[in-house]
Amino acid sequence: MDRIRRNERLATMTRILSASPNRIFTLSHFGDLFGAAKSTLSEDIDILRDVVRYFQLGQLDTVTGAAGGVRFRPTVARRDALTFVQGLCARLSAPGRVLPGGFLYMADVLSMPDLVEKMGDILAGQYYAAEPDFVLTMETKGIPVALMAAKALGVPLVIARRDSKVYEGPAVNINYLSGSAGRIETMSLSRRAVREGQRALIVDDFMKAGGTAKGMTDMMREFAVTVVGLCVVMATREPEKKRVEGVRALMVMEDVDDAHDSAHIRPAAWLEEAE
Amino acid sequence: MDRIRRNERLATMTRILSASPNRIFTLSHFGDLFGAAKSTLSEDIDILRDVVRYFQLGQLDTVTGAAGGVRFRPTVARRDALTFVQGLCARLSAPGRVLPGGFLYMADVLSMPDLVEKMGDILAGQYYAAEPDFVLTMETKGIPVALMAAKALGVPLVIARRDSKVYEGPAVNINYLSGSAGRIETMSLSRRAVREGQRALIVDDFMKAGGTAKGMTDMMREFAVTVVGLCVVMATREPEKKRVEGVRALMVMEDVDDAHDSAHIRPAAWLEEAE
Repeated sequence: MDRIRRNERLATMTRILSASPNRIFTLSHFGDLFGAAKSTLSEDIDILRDVVRYFQLGQLDTVTGAAGGVRFRPTVARRDALTFVQGLCARLSAPGRVLPGGFLYMADVLSMPDLVEKMGDILAGQYYAAEPDFVLTMETKGIPVALMAAKALGVPLVIARRDSKVYEGPAVNINYLSGSAGRIETMSLSRRAVREGQRALIVDDFMKAGGTAKGMTDMMREFAVTVVGLCVVMATREPEKKRVEGVRALMVMEDVDDAHDSAHIRPAAWLEEAE
Repeated sequence: MDRIRRNERLATMTRILSASPNRIFTLSHFGDLFGAAKSTLSEDIDILRDVVRYFQLGQLDTVTGAAGGVRFRPTVARRDALTFVQGLCARLSAPGRVLPGGFLYMADVLSMPDLVEKMGDILAGQYYAAEPDFVLTMETKGIPVALMAAKALGVPLVIARRDSKVYEGPAVNINYLSGSAGRIETMSLSRRAVREGQRALIVDDFMKAGGTAKGMTDMMREFAVTVVGLCVVMATREPEKKRVEGVRALMVMEDVDDAHDSAHIRPAAWLEEAE
């Protein structure tokens, strides 16, 4: 491959940009890689922007200024997001998914890489403007979705632990009211995980009363971190009043059908609004 | 965009193939998407294969037969893998990383999406031929790397829990000897997470004596699942004889420098061998 043609540049740029979402690559970076002039690369990017838009592969932006360049975000069109979430709802509404105590078996869906990546992309898409510095989740089941949201946003994931005996150095512990168990629990976060003044996006798997989410927002206050958003894969309709405000869910779990151990699950209302 | 040109097809195929690693896409799939003839698409794929190889973006294969098509794997060239792991070693050898008890603070590195994705790609690259049906990890810190390895392999992640009281339905519990605590612990795996006769790749974050890994292999025996590989991000040099065999680590932790709370960490030997 002596001469690198537009074909090759476009395919390579697509791979590089989409492998590092929300990261700005300078034209010089690609200039060095391809040995191409900036004017040529600008044309490449114009073509790529149209392609990405036409095939709804995400969003390609040119960022001007000193730290300028080009950046890819794996945003999902609202209609695609709704169709995808409807599919999840159908899957999770299947008989046998509701366990004793009203818990929903979601572990399989929450650890399929392609599904959690799409969920992460959809959630992250709502928070680019909020510019979070990291995504916070509470172990365990929310970690895959939270990691993928962090990837889409190009920021680290931070994991709060259920156990203060873990070996992550000096840690801040707080107590919170666990809605499901109805009792006081402890969560722990390593002091070195987060810096004062940062901005957090909270992502978790399931919310009933919102006790764990409330615990995470309290924890962020201890670290002097601003919470810019709070989202979950699944929220129960009841109680309607959660312990935290401004929760964005992908799905809402309505009442449980005891005869079939299944739940009525629907996409969250915001997914049905126009973009 | 009335006429879809080769440029556009190549960029779009790159995005679609690399977003779903190890999944075979038929030519008809792309034919429907682009309205292009199979002969044209075959030429596209030939070009793309060369591009992917030239820029070391991974590996593009044409799979023949009834279920044939084209598939992308995010393999990492051995030399790139070594350079990347050397960078991780330098980072993790920094003063202050060793905590009381000889534990190494790795939580930050283990939850940076770009770092765990590359680790996952490197590890997965060694197991395509083994054709695992899923990746198994034990909560919590190994989940991000294990998820990314699962993504690269195009298979689900399965998470064993430390706590048998979690709400995932009927579960198998086993006891194992935890090397770090030197005591008997319990791990739990939902019965519906795994099917008899499947093949598992075990991925974990840290191995000292190998007690947890031994527990996971015992667990797989209970499910009549074959373990096709066992890998960890970091293994300690001591004890040299682990409780399991055939462990593939990315890094090896040598002795600890008590004066600086730092450890000597080097890339695993296999990364320095020719490919």
